[in-house]
Amino acid sequence: MESTVGQVIKCRAAVAWEAGKPLVIEEVEVAPPQAMEVRLKILYTSLCHTDVYFWEAKGQKPIFPRILGHEAAGIVESVGEGVTDLAPGDHVLPVFTGECKECAHCLSEESNMCNLLRINTDRGVMLSDGQSRFTIKGKPINHFLGTSTFSEYTVVHSGCVAKINPLAPLDKVCVLSCGFSTGFGATVNVAKPTKGSTVAVFGLGAVGLAAAEGARVSGASRIIGVDVNPKRFEEAKKFGVNEFVNPKDYDRPVQEVIAEMTGGGADRSVECTGNIDAMISAFECVHDGWGVAVLVGVPHKDAVLKTHPVNFLNERTLKGTFFGNYKPRSDLPSVVERYMNKEIELEKFITHEVTFSEINKAFDYMLQGASLRCIIRMDG
Amino acid sequence: MESTVGQVIKCRAAVAWEAGKPLVIEEVEVAPPQAMEVRLKILYTSLCHTDVYFWEAKGQKPIFPRILGHEAAGIVESVGEGVTDLAPGDHVLPVFTGECKECAHCLSEESNMCNLLRINTDRGVMLSDGQSRFTIKGKPINHFLGTSTFSEYTVVHSGCVAKINPLAPLDKVCVLSCGFSTGFGATVNVAKPTKGSTVAVFGLGAVGLAAAEGARVSGASRIIGVDVNPKRFEEAKKFGVNEFVNPKDYDRPVQEVIAEMTGGGADRSVECTGNIDAMISAFECVHDGWGVAVLVGVPHKDAVLKTHPVNFLNERTLKGTFFGNYKPRSDLPSVVERYMNKEIELEKFITHEVTFSEINKAFDYMLQGASLRCIIRMDG
Ligand SMILES: NC(=O)c1ccc[n+]([C@@H]2O[C@H](COP(=O)([O-])OP(=O)(O)OC[C@H]3O[C@@H](n4cnc5c(N)ncnc54)[C@H](O)[C@@H]3O)[C@@H](O)[C@H]2O)c1
Ligand SMILES: NC(=O)c1ccc[n+]([C@@H]2O[C@H](COP(=O)([O-])OP(=O)(O)OC[C@H]3O[C@@H](n4cnc5c(N)ncnc54)[C@H](O)[C@@H]3O)[C@@H](O)[C@H]2O)c1
Ligand SMILES: [Zn+2]
Ligand SMILES: [Zn+2]
Ligand SMILES: [Zn+2]
Ligand SMILES: [Zn+2]
Repeated sequence: MESTVGQVIKCRAAVAWEAGKPLVIEEVEVAPPQAMEVRLKILYTSLCHTDVYFWEAKGQKPIFPRILGHEAAGIVESVGEGVTDLAPGDHVLPVFTGECKECAHCLSEESNMCNLLRINTDRGVMLSDGQSRFTIKGKPINHFLGTSTFSEYTVVHSGCVAKINPLAPLDKVCVLSCGFSTGFGATVNVAKPTKGSTVAVFGLGAVGLAAAEGARVSGASRIIGVDVNPKRFEEAKKFGVNEFVNPKDYDRPVQEVIAEMTGGGADRSVECTGNIDAMISAFECVHDGWGVAVLVGVPHKDAVLKTHPVNFLNERTLKGTFFGNYKPRSDLPSVVERYMNKEIELEKFITHEVTFSEINKAFDYMLQGASLRCIIRMDG
Repeated sequence: MESTVGQVIKCRAAVAWEAGKPLVIEEVEVAPPQAMEVRLKILYTSLCHTDVYFWEAKGQKPIFPRILGHEAAGIVESVGEGVTDLAPGDHVLPVFTGECKECAHCLSEESNMCNLLRINTDRGVMLSDGQSRFTIKGKPINHFLGTSTFSEYTVVHSGCVAKINPLAPLDKVCVLSCGFSTGFGATVNVAKPTKGSTVAVFGLGAVGLAAAEGARVSGASRIIGVDVNPKRFEEAKKFGVNEFVNPKDYDRPVQEVIAEMTGGGADRSVECTGNIDAMISAFECVHDGWGVAVLVGVPHKDAVLKTHPVNFLNERTLKGTFFGNYKPRSDLPSVVERYMNKEIELEKFITHEVTFSEINKAFDYMLQGASLRCIIRMDG
């Protein structure tokens, strides 16, 4: 096989031409990586809600045509000028947010909100030159979240790429590049439940179940799942969720129900719904004196969190997290290792698999609420 | 001198007969301590805003006649049945909230909100038998916060008494029994600023200045004082506050002003006003990625804290504290030691001193905003 380094690569990509219309597999041209960029061969990608939101583009600025996709795993094909810590052949996870290792956030032990490479949902071009690396017959196609993994090849800033153990199965660890890490990290990095504690998880989608997995791994003895959709309860049992509350079954606030169940409140709660009422309940359901609530869900832009300040004065803590507080390059490799050591289970998140040419089926499964994660094999 | 143990003691107390009317020095009878109680000889007491609030009884349930006072230092006169860790002669600080050492809160490393002995502003009697230990000619007088230190002798639950170094000057360390510890602990135990960090303190009363003292001791390099009363600024300089913001000087929210001054936000903020707008500003002024805001002020009962949840998702933390998260019996002795080691300065908080017979002057100084702390000498 001839080297593709420095050449434009022609390959298949699933292009979203219009909001809400099925993606179309097209032949695209992928330009070589520029300075500090890498070009990746994507092997597996999975579908996350965020792809669906930006595809539907309800309430978002519509940016089309666009190549969506941000949860994926692949191999470095070539690197641009100045990239020293990645080389062709490296196994990697592209991530929708990056780590420049130089800004105040990257230098802080606590933050992962890199000034340079923080998520930007409105940008359809590369950071360095404001251009797209994708074209179809010479006409540019927009990038998405700096990743655009619904393409056999994509170009990503090197600061948004985590180099991982080459032995890790890419068809599993691809889910670590967004949803799983977001929920799992919210629990283990931010809520930090101790062994034997009680954790309430609001929202039992993929993110909430990953938060529950974090609670299980932390040794929580009671994991209370809260969802308005009771269909989620059966599946959640596999994730260590051992008590269930449907707010619709009660005519009083769910925080009161949880306080009664737990003798005063949960030790920790993790909110993974995006619903503002659930956010307030998640905060108010934690125990006074030591309770910590963590917000993960992305709220409506006009949402207002309202609570009585005495809930804070009674020594409750409210935090939020972005990507589970993981720094993508520094921290994701160790999450892969936790999977390799069988500490965490990813298989149970993967409910469906389709070939790339069937990618629209993945959208259908998610829209029907049938899937947690649907893996898309790029070779099919 | 004859022993008073087991006897009713007749002594002077300052009695609040009616809301807002000057206290009257009366001769009261103080019964001996019952099981788990101690009787203290108060040597010094100081006036805190909370005494004034319950004396004014605006918006509070009026409970009169009552012996107010809760910030004080004294010596154990006698102990009731079952008290093993305190003995006559011990130097102590009575505290408005207690530590039973047995409940879930006392057993938690994080909480100081003891289930048994937590502050109760509505109770005018002792916990064990629902009776008062104070009478005037046989008629009961209400207790206040379980302490009632505006009396030469008082009876307190042994769980609300911190035994301290007998070498500590009681006319100084008495301020540790409420206001100072509340503000100082909010910074050092809850906000936990690191060396070189920027701390914003909202409200420059005694509590806020104690929070600033905590920031100074923690090595904060910028301490930004925020107050709507610019008269507070001059004095605050003595407390290490080195920048000042008066929200009234700006027509944009003070959180924006602070974000500009600090290149994105303060590392920590401590709110010591009780004003809901200041609480919201204190939260929103901290840096994304790592900022922590701590609420201390006691808000109006109908106050609602409102903020956009994205402020949390951008990795800001909001906490509240009660008595600076200090467990009174376990932790106050070490705060006394920090004073003895000259780590913390208490003298600058003590702006006035009066004799017991002049106690109403202490109320005047506070109402005029002239004092931080006025020490009341019980022997005069
Ligand atoms: N912060 C981040 O880094 C990050 C990353 C990825 C996803 N997310 C967000 O996490 C959230 C969850 O994502 P997901 O993919 O698991 O979504 P999902 O739609 O699969 O699951 C959300 C669940 O919440 C439930 N729910 C909705 N309202 C509720 C309420 N009031 N009370 C209880 N349950 C309620 C729904 O029934 C559903 O089961 C979304 O808001 C998503 O945008 C955040
Ligand atoms: N949580 C506890 O354990 C505890 C214990 C004692 C006191 N407190 C509370 O701490 C607070 C402060 O007590 P203090 O004795 O220092 O009171 P104080 O009245 O002496 O000081 C409060 C200061 O806040 C300022 N202020 C008011 N509104 C403001 C605003 N919007 N922005 C900026 N500054 C504003 C005032 O001008 C004043 O200087 C009170 O609410 C008190 O009830 C709490
Ligand atoms: Zn950075
Ligand atoms: Zn995602
Ligand atoms: Zn207790
Ligand atoms: Zn006080």
